Amino acid sequence: MTPPDSLDSFHAVIPAGGAGTRLWPLSRAGRPKFLLDLDGSGRSLLQQTWDRLRELVPAERIHVVTGAAHADAICEQLPELTGLLVEPSPRDSMPAIGLAAAVIGASDPDAIIGSFAADHVIEGQEAFAAAITQAVAVAGTGLITTIGIAPTGPSTAFGYIESGRQLDVPGAPSAQAVAAFVEKPDAETAAAYVAGGAHSWNGGMFVTRTDVLLGHLARLQPGLHQGLAEIARAWGGDRQQDVLEATWPRLTKIAIDHAVAEPVSLEGGMAVVPGTFGWDDVGDFAALQDVGTGSSPDTVWVDASGLAIAADHTTIAVVGLDDVVVVRTADALLVTTRAHAQRVKDVVAELKERGRTDLV
Amino acid sequence: MTPPDSLDSFHAVIPAGGAGTRLWPLSRAGRPKFLLDLDGSGRSLLQQTWDRLRELVPAERIHVVTGAAHADAICEQLPELTGLLVEPSPRDSMPAIGLAAAVIGASDPDAIIGSFAADHVIEGQEAFAAAITQAVAVAGTGLITTIGIAPTGPSTAFGYIESGRQLDVPGAPSAQAVAAFVEKPDAETAAAYVAGGAHSWNGGMFVTRTDVLLGHLARLQPGLHQGLAEIARAWGGDRQQDVLEATWPRLTKIAIDHAVAEPVSLEGGMAVVPGTFGWDDVGDFAALQDVGTGSSPDTVWVDASGLAIAADHTTIAVVGLDDVVVVRTADALLVTTRAHAQRVKDVVAELKERGRTDLV
Repeated sequence: MTPPDSLDSFHAVIPAGGAGTRLWPLSRAGRPKFLLDLDGSGRSLLQQTWDRLRELVPAERIHVVTGAAHADAICEQLPELTGLLVEPSPRDSMPAIGLAAAVIGASDPDAIIGSFAADHVIEGQEAFAAAITQAVAVAGTGLITTIGIAPTGPSTAFGYIESGRQLDVPGAPSAQAVAAFVEKPDAETAAAYVAGGAHSWNGGMFVTRTDVLLGHLARLQPGLHQGLAEIARAWGGDRQQDVLEATWPRLTKIAIDHAVAEPVSLEGGMAVVPGTFGWDDVGDFAALQDVGTGSSPDTVWVDASGLAIAADHTTIAVVGLDDVVVVRTADALLVTTRAHAQRVKDVVAELKERGRTDLV
Repeated sequence: MTPPDSLDSFHAVIPAGGAGTRLWPLSRAGRPKFLLDLDGSGRSLLQQTWDRLRELVPAERIHVVTGAAHADAICEQLPELTGLLVEPSPRDSMPAIGLAAAVIGASDPDAIIGSFAADHVIEGQEAFAAAITQAVAVAGTGLITTIGIAPTGPSTAFGYIESGRQLDVPGAPSAQAVAAFVEKPDAETAAAYVAGGAHSWNGGMFVTRTDVLLGHLARLQPGLHQGLAEIARAWGGDRQQDVLEATWPRLTKIAIDHAVAEPVSLEGGMAVVPGTFGWDDVGDFAALQDVGTGSSPDTVWVDASGLAIAADHTTIAVVGLDDVVVVRTADALLVTTRAHAQRVKDVVAELKERGRTDLV
């Protein structure tokens, strides 16, 4: 598939952070979720994200923002990568995406960037490409554009986007204004959202002109904007690292949702394009099973069912338990149920409490 | 504790056989239950059995009957052992104990032997010694004497011994005739047994003069008796191994309970001495937990309870499951519940079916 000309000024940004503690013991601080091959495809979630974007833009227009701890592993997984931006410390998604916007915008003033999490699962490349192409067209008009994922059920694990009036943008027939972003709802509200048809899942994908994003930032988070501008001015020069290290720790630690998306949506500055591709943030082992990850093939089930993963290729036997989740690595073992999948983060907290830094 | 003079002619026999498939993956065909240190004491069940008997008789009067596959491991665990009898093939308990009786009786005509499983747990050495001392006194009168374990509850996992009239044997004030041996009862019958007070658990311990046992065998199982006599005549001579190997495969495969204990009890030839020591055959992981085996100390429990053993010293975390049983070895993992502990043998059957001889 050849990408359309309209993507000529499009850059992809992949913020790669977050350990994914609810996928312990597969994920660890030093081996975060995005570096893992969770579906046995031979490609990590980061590599799958890369592959998906690489069909839309050349390698030199894909940028990964990450911490120093993961820079080497990322370069190893993505040998084509030239645009690695290393954060001196984690300061949430707004500084990470803002850094990419400032650096890309400094050398390419017409640039439109799209931000895509490194650790989500997406099924359906054509639908994904179609949504991005529409979003880029909308972003060109000066709106920050997000992708609204068509819900497959009344999930309470995701935030929702409420669509407003239809927009009239050439090349983007499905685009609508964002009426509001809403936090993770309770089950009843989620059911009403899905029944109503005006709400889609917030997959955290944002497409925007760099000047538009930075303009909003200058208004809404002036301190953060000023810091990013200083870093961008020094970028590529002798003082790049010095300025980055001096400025970065002062940047406000905030998510792009709270810094920009929510306030701008209230001003009518956000658009949403529906995404009809399959999407999941694979937040826990129940989600992992839902996206098709299967049990190790030599598992023995006796009056039992669930997910049993032996990352060390040993044999697991389960007797008399349904909807169980068993995950074994060389140094640790998790036994839980689908219903308790979210509570796995409590194990990581307890291990930290015990000083078991070797296991978290 | 110095053993009483009445034990001067007493020999202990330990049949060491049976893999213990319901304790998979701790127990394996090549690493049977009796070789395992299940309670973390540093001594295997076989070694604990040895230690218990060694307080009653010198090492040269303790005999172990086992298969060729385990001979080396047993000699390693019991460096004092001189009386190892190696069966060419497993033919159940009657040939094993009969062989010991024939060989011991040939060199010590006054011998009284007591047979004790290699893989049971016993608590209370003094009560054990007192029961054996009484049983030896009763056996001297020509009765085959068993130990009746005082039940701690209405177990359906064990056979029961029904006591009959009081006997009048000097040195054995508690001895009674055996009225009957009964198979594992249902729950209602077991409750009635325990309430009635005339029934005790059959721990499979038999104490008898060798000539008495062999005399009953000559009547009840003449072919088996003749084979054992041929082996005993050749024992210690040049032809020992040849005769053993030629004769053994012809011996009737039968348990001592069916061959001798049950029919002789109906003739009034069996006695029972109550044992007030703690006893368990540790048949499954529920029993293992009951005898005090604890979880690995660094296990993380989050809204969970049960038994979690990491034989490879890794860390186990359990979230949201009660009465769970988790047992991890270097090459395998079992996840089940207390209630399903008996069904673990189905895993071993399934692995055999799949040709996984490396795991069973």
